Amino acid sequence: MSEPPPVSGSPLRERLHEIIFEADTPAGKTFDMALIAMICASVAVVVISTMESMQAEPYASILYVLEWLFTALFTAEYVIRLLIVRRPARYATSFFGIIDLLAILPAFIGFFVPGGERLLVVRTLRLLRIFRVLKLARYLSEAAALREALYISRHKIAVFITTVMIVVLISAAFMHIVEGNYGVGPPDESGNPTVGNPDFDSMPNAIYWAVITMTTVGYGDVTPTTAVGKGMTAILVLVGYSLIIVPTGILTAEISQQRSRPITTRSCPSCMLEGHDRDATYCKRCGQPLEPERHADA
Amino acid sequence: MSEPPPVSGSPLRERLHEIIFEADTPAGKTFDMALIAMICASVAVVVISTMESMQAEPYASILYVLEWLFTALFTAEYVIRLLIVRRPARYATSFFGIIDLLAILPAFIGFFVPGGERLLVVRTLRLLRIFRVLKLARYLSEAAALREALYISRHKIAVFITTVMIVVLISAAFMHIVEGNYGVGPPDESGNPTVGNPDFDSMPNAIYWAVITMTTVGYGDVTPTTAVGKGMTAILVLVGYSLIIVPTGILTAEISQQRSRPITTRSCPSCMLEGHDRDATYCKRCGQPLEPERHADA
Amino acid sequence: MSEPPPVSGSPLRERLHEIIFEADTPAGKTFDMALIAMICASVAVVVISTMESMQAEPYASILYVLEWLFTALFTAEYVIRLLIVRRPARYATSFFGIIDLLAILPAFIGFFVPGGERLLVVRTLRLLRIFRVLKLARYLSEAAALREALYISRHKIAVFITTVMIVVLISAAFMHIVEGNYGVGPPDESGNPTVGNPDFDSMPNAIYWAVITMTTVGYGDVTPTTAVGKGMTAILVLVGYSLIIVPTGILTAEISQQRSRPITTRSCPSCMLEGHDRDATYCKRCGQPLEPERHADA
Amino acid sequence: MSEPPPVSGSPLRERLHEIIFEADTPAGKTFDMALIAMICASVAVVVISTMESMQAEPYASILYVLEWLFTALFTAEYVIRLLIVRRPARYATSFFGIIDLLAILPAFIGFFVPGGERLLVVRTLRLLRIFRVLKLARYLSEAAALREALYISRHKIAVFITTVMIVVLISAAFMHIVEGNYGVGPPDESGNPTVGNPDFDSMPNAIYWAVITMTTVGYGDVTPTTAVGKGMTAILVLVGYSLIIVPTGILTAEISQQRSRPITTRSCPSCMLEGHDRDATYCKRCGQPLEPERHADA
Repeated sequence: MSEPPPVSGSPLRERLHEIIFEADTPAGKTFDMALIAMICASVAVVVISTMESMQAEPYASILYVLEWLFTALFTAEYVIRLLIVRRPARYATSFFGIIDLLAILPAFIGFFVPGGERLLVVRTLRLLRIFRVLKLARYLSEAAALREALYISRHKIAVFITTVMIVVLISAAFMHIVEGNYGVGPPDESGNPTVGNPDFDSMPNAIYWAVITMTTVGYGDVTPTTAVGKGMTAILVLVGYSLIIVPTGILTAEISQQRSRPITTRSCPSCMLEGHDRDATYCKRCGQPLEPERHADA
Repeated sequence: MSEPPPVSGSPLRERLHEIIFEADTPAGKTFDMALIAMICASVAVVVISTMESMQAEPYASILYVLEWLFTALFTAEYVIRLLIVRRPARYATSFFGIIDLLAILPAFIGFFVPGGERLLVVRTLRLLRIFRVLKLARYLSEAAALREALYISRHKIAVFITTVMIVVLISAAFMHIVEGNYGVGPPDESGNPTVGNPDFDSMPNAIYWAVITMTTVGYGDVTPTTAVGKGMTAILVLVGYSLIIVPTGILTAEISQQRSRPITTRSCPSCMLEGHDRDATYCKRCGQPLEPERHADA
Repeated sequence: MSEPPPVSGSPLRERLHEIIFEADTPAGKTFDMALIAMICASVAVVVISTMESMQAEPYASILYVLEWLFTALFTAEYVIRLLIVRRPARYATSFFGIIDLLAILPAFIGFFVPGGERLLVVRTLRLLRIFRVLKLARYLSEAAALREALYISRHKIAVFITTVMIVVLISAAFMHIVEGNYGVGPPDESGNPTVGNPDFDSMPNAIYWAVITMTTVGYGDVTPTTAVGKGMTAILVLVGYSLIIVPTGILTAEISQQRSRPITTRSCPSCMLEGHDRDATYCKRCGQPLEPERHADA
Repeated sequence: MSEPPPVSGSPLRERLHEIIFEADTPAGKTFDMALIAMICASVAVVVISTMESMQAEPYASILYVLEWLFTALFTAEYVIRLLIVRRPARYATSFFGIIDLLAILPAFIGFFVPGGERLLVVRTLRLLRIFRVLKLARYLSEAAALREALYISRHKIAVFITTVMIVVLISAAFMHIVEGNYGVGPPDESGNPTVGNPDFDSMPNAIYWAVITMTTVGYGDVTPTTAVGKGMTAILVLVGYSLIIVPTGILTAEISQQRSRPITTRSCPSCMLEGHDRDATYCKRCGQPLEPERHADA
């Protein structure tokens, strides 16, 4: 959503707004780059501070200071953002507003709830800000091309995901019957390992197995043990593998085509037609004017 | 197969037929959506009821009631379908007719055979109904495009699957010789672990290994232990990997091409030419009229 | 290689040659289909006979009889092939000739060397005959298209395989240094597990790990244990993954292109230009006549 | 960088320079081929000498002699390269110069530091020389096509890698919270296994897990144990899998397009336009002369 300009009349506020929220001005660009650098540094500190060897002195103290330094900086940034934006409530409830808050909250929670500061790893979510900055650089068209390829293929992808979900559920149900001890009801009288595989005794476990298997991750923590189960697994793997290659094909075809015909994700407001050229001003089917391309903002 | 219209003369029956079997009318659409929602809910109940923590009260009772509620609804639907369709035997023996029966049968089997209701997980098969409904929505063309890409590539895919099967079997045979204790005949006199790997002592096990390995799932429950076996595995993995990327290429090429030329799977009844445009009425090669596109039905 | 016609003058021999070696005549087609069916059946027998539960009576006896039945049939076929072909030595040393021999040899070896009949699983190699029959059916063009896509991309694939091999070797060398106990020379004085990971103590083991990892099979039987090793693995996996997607792209592009321009693998005998159209009679660059398309034979 | 010609005036030096550094002359080609063969042989020796069974006599002695033979030959080659090249310092600090040194250094280090010769496996790095020789052969255009496809897609790939990194970090952070025992701070009072999974107790471990999982390698040495963790893993695997197929699509589209329009990686020095045809001498947009294609050298 396009961020409304700040209340006019306060030059400092306007200047700060330009620096913090705008990205096309030199000051805005510099601020964004500094922010990304700071976010990366704070994530590095959080990652390092979870390592066991870093619990000893003097590392622990240094990391403790650094974590609070970044918390202070991010808190200041958050407060300033709230103060200078025209609609603070809207920023506070926006996607990036919530992430900005989540990045500082755990440190303060740590005062009241012991161990609360351990949640500081959610600070990694702030890395998503990088995508906002990517918009500005030369990577814009590349990122946009990828996003558009995904967007245009969304119906195909929806069909595909539905298919995968159904295949996963049916596979899981069959393996639950074949391999599990049927999950529901009282256990078998003897309870010997030949009757059922505890890995498949509930549908959620069987679904976990099906996803791990059909994406070819194959941890091996849940595996079939019976001959029938192994045979079914072999067939399901081949079926699942065939299924899961489909989106590669869809996406590749989309990217190939996009290359020769750069289009936008705008849809005609009157006839809903999609796939307009980037320089199109009127809908090619009904002649109604198109909205200019919107820019995401927060 | 196109479902024949019901015996005329009974308005209620005709109305019910329209609601349950037709999908283009508002009533039919609403019924289909409600059915899909109910199927999803019943699958969720079945999945949840297999979890160990759900065997305790009060969850067990609630789930028991819900399961019987869905069983009652699905039974009513099944009976009505049988009554209003002109050829009940044909529906009962159709793909979806069998699935509809399988979804309710386990509950009743549970009366006679203890534990029979555990088979209720086969109810997940009813999710396949979603594909029938997909036909109606805007996803039709997407699903059709995927199906056609697969259909048109079916000869290439047949060649590919044959090749994979042969490579799997030959790989399994070689690993069975190299790693296994030869399976057939009496075991080796010493039986020391250096002689054979029990994981490879039968061809079915070796085939299971070959499929799990060449699809890159790689559970790790069956792995080579000898130097020769490891070397062969490394080579087979590279060969198998190369083989298995082939269908991605085939499918992508097909989807790419289809994009620019939307075609159907109809073939000319007189010259067998395939690949007609969707709006074609006559064969483009021999000028004979084409059959209209058939709609799967059940 | 084109099989020479049999010595003329013997009608029976000529007739048998037509049945066994030719594939375009009805008799030849029937023979080929029967042979494929028999090969599949014999492979099924071999696979089943390696299962432990099939070592008991009465299965063992039945399978024993069936195995000898197929051995007798294949031996007869092999002898007849040798007798009717004009150059028996050439057939006997050809690819399929050796496979035909390998498929019957183990049974006879079993007379002299106990357990020799266990090698009967090499009979699976005869499944490769299926590819010869595929040539005849409608799958010819599909199989040919795949073969040509691979053939035309062979230089790219060679570059790719060389790259993969080098990356595998270098990765293995680095992991051998980082994770292994250096393999060469005397072991460390203490020999404690923190020093080296026995899984990486020799380069062949490290190469096995690298192949299993970079193809994303990931058995998990060889995994890094040190922090440095894990970090390197994460980087290598990403690098290797990027590398290994390359052939998919190459092949897809080739298949896409081939679709619109059916070409053959013939190269001009005078200027070595490749990629001639299927109906080309003269080289498009130098105008020299091209050889007609050769048909593989054996 | 184009290697400057040697100091003129010394015919022997000039001749050696031609043999060792040039690749288009018959002598240079022969030298390159011999060098590649020698590098491959030396790598084979190093690989074999790390095998445990090769530590015994007489293999150990033979391998010891062979290793020193190759060390001597490579040392001679390195010294001659240093002597005949016009700027020895530049060669010594070049990529291949450093690798050439690394390939011989460990043998000499072994004199002073026991076990130093174990680092001889870094000799595998010399295999990279193969890429220099590939430039000369018919594989040039293939290698160049691959390199260009990667080069042209570099912005898309940068966006993609950034996305993957962020998804990996965020996934790792969430699994660290859900599965780990929070890493930071004092351990839980009870320390029972239901509280935390030691595999996820530090962010680096969680990142290792995320990379191994999302590339579908799936070793299985680090796996989720809680229901929430398994559910999140299933979702992350599907998300990650979708993400990781993106570069395949990008690369395939690039290769497809390149096929029909062979271009180079040169960019116009005045308007920075890229994608010029291989035989272009002037920029197609602004008409300024283009630089001739540069040849990497060392």
